Amino acid sequence: MNWGAIDKYAKSLIKEAGHRIRVSFYTNISVDTKASANDLVTNIDREIEQFFIERITKDFPEHRIVGEEGFGDTIDSLDGVVWFLDPIDGTMNFVHQKRNFAISLGIYVDGVGMFGYIYDVMRDDFYHATRGEGAYFNDERLPRLENTPLSEAVIGINAIWVTPNRYVEHEPLIELVRSCRGTRSYGSAAIELAYVSSGRMDAYMSMRLSPWDVAGGMVIASEVGAVSSTMTGEPLSLLGQETFIVAKPGLQQHILKHHIRLK
Amino acid sequence: MNWGAIDKYAKSLIKEAGHRIRVSFYTNISVDTKASANDLVTNIDREIEQFFIERITKDFPEHRIVGEEGFGDTIDSLDGVVWFLDPIDGTMNFVHQKRNFAISLGIYVDGVGMFGYIYDVMRDDFYHATRGEGAYFNDERLPRLENTPLSEAVIGINAIWVTPNRYVEHEPLIELVRSCRGTRSYGSAAIELAYVSSGRMDAYMSMRLSPWDVAGGMVIASEVGAVSSTMTGEPLSLLGQETFIVAKPGLQQHILKHHIRLK
Repeated sequence: MNWGAIDKYAKSLIKEAGHRIRVSFYTNISVDTKASANDLVTNIDREIEQFFIERITKDFPEHRIVGEEGFGDTIDSLDGVVWFLDPIDGTMNFVHQKRNFAISLGIYVDGVGMFGYIYDVMRDDFYHATRGEGAYFNDERLPRLENTPLSEAVIGINAIWVTPNRYVEHEPLIELVRSCRGTRSYGSAAIELAYVSSGRMDAYMSMRLSPWDVAGGMVIASEVGAVSSTMTGEPLSLLGQETFIVAKPGLQQHILKHHIRLK
Repeated sequence: MNWGAIDKYAKSLIKEAGHRIRVSFYTNISVDTKASANDLVTNIDREIEQFFIERITKDFPEHRIVGEEGFGDTIDSLDGVVWFLDPIDGTMNFVHQKRNFAISLGIYVDGVGMFGYIYDVMRDDFYHATRGEGAYFNDERLPRLENTPLSEAVIGINAIWVTPNRYVEHEPLIELVRSCRGTRSYGSAAIELAYVSSGRMDAYMSMRLSPWDVAGGMVIASEVGAVSSTMTGEPLSLLGQETFIVAKPGLQQHILKHHIRLK
């Protein structure tokens, strides 16, 4: 397998998809809902996913593709080469803001993340990494992260997790919000993973994410020394919805130990 | 008074200050804390405020200037012309992220907001308005806002206000977070006011803001039909720290009535 060529191929596909998304703002965008009234999807999410899948299946027929909109494969193992794609991560931002969304792509081989890409389309910010070769923000190498105490940490957490919910006790999370330097919420797991990887936040967490939300970002985060896991501290299976935290290593341990009590 | 000239003057000052801030990233930035460990200030906040104040006092000696860093005037009335300046709104983002902060400026005459400016420095996004003449995002006129039901609203609220705090009962705010389409938190009141004004969010609120955080944004928001008030529904005094909400009109009424119970 010529991995360098696959890396170039993936980058060029993502840039072309980004261009298509920017052009889409001059067309009619139709918004539907999926699992719930706040789970939005548009014709553009679908068209961009189909664009990726048509190209990848033609050029790499033996690879499998898992995409948010369901045009790809359903998998029950990570054997072989699997592409995890979110054509528009942060669809609510895409619809309401026309910005603050990203294309997220991760390429895994037998369960090991080889390539990760996050493209913040409207900022034209491209985060990417190759396993063992470091992570980049545009053309700039991202430095390894140094640890930060909780009192100086900026944490990506949505307010919803600080309210009673079915996944986690919210009281210890109230303590987390009150103990850190500040919280942010951007509405795109991919962008928040990119922010942790580039040192703009110190941790990001959510109680329910899908493989395509995090697969690309996890490769990037890993190359700068951030730790990704479920809320029980296990590696993600990438086979279904899971809890998720990415953080600088000491901080991840501290948060899991003191602020996470799963229901 | 030649108001058109003052508008041009203010715009050019803000652009020059933005340039100085961008250049500052190539110098040493020293970070101090103010009222609390999470209330950050840097030498750049101070230098930029002094840059504005030196220019404005020289060119408009009869105007008063109220700035976050305290180099300007202390006021106990809004008589005459008052400039409300936050040289870097979102200092924590400036320090941690090198982005997502803004210069915020409002020019008031006898308590009436005449000009409002918000400059998202790193995106190079400039929001501005003149009373009675509409609001602009860069060179594009911002449309008047249409109302949005709470169930479809994206609301800017920091997770801290959904935890027990000294200003407001947090339980009704938990209900707000669970009833809206989604919440975001960007860590800059000016940027969040700009987002409401440009339709990217439907409301933004905080329990403790200073005049310089909101004075510029309120002029912009008003020109697109958004309502700004304290949490009791009163106009802001702009003479000290206050509670604050800006929203599309029906939404502001709904939130105040059903989700705000001040302590």
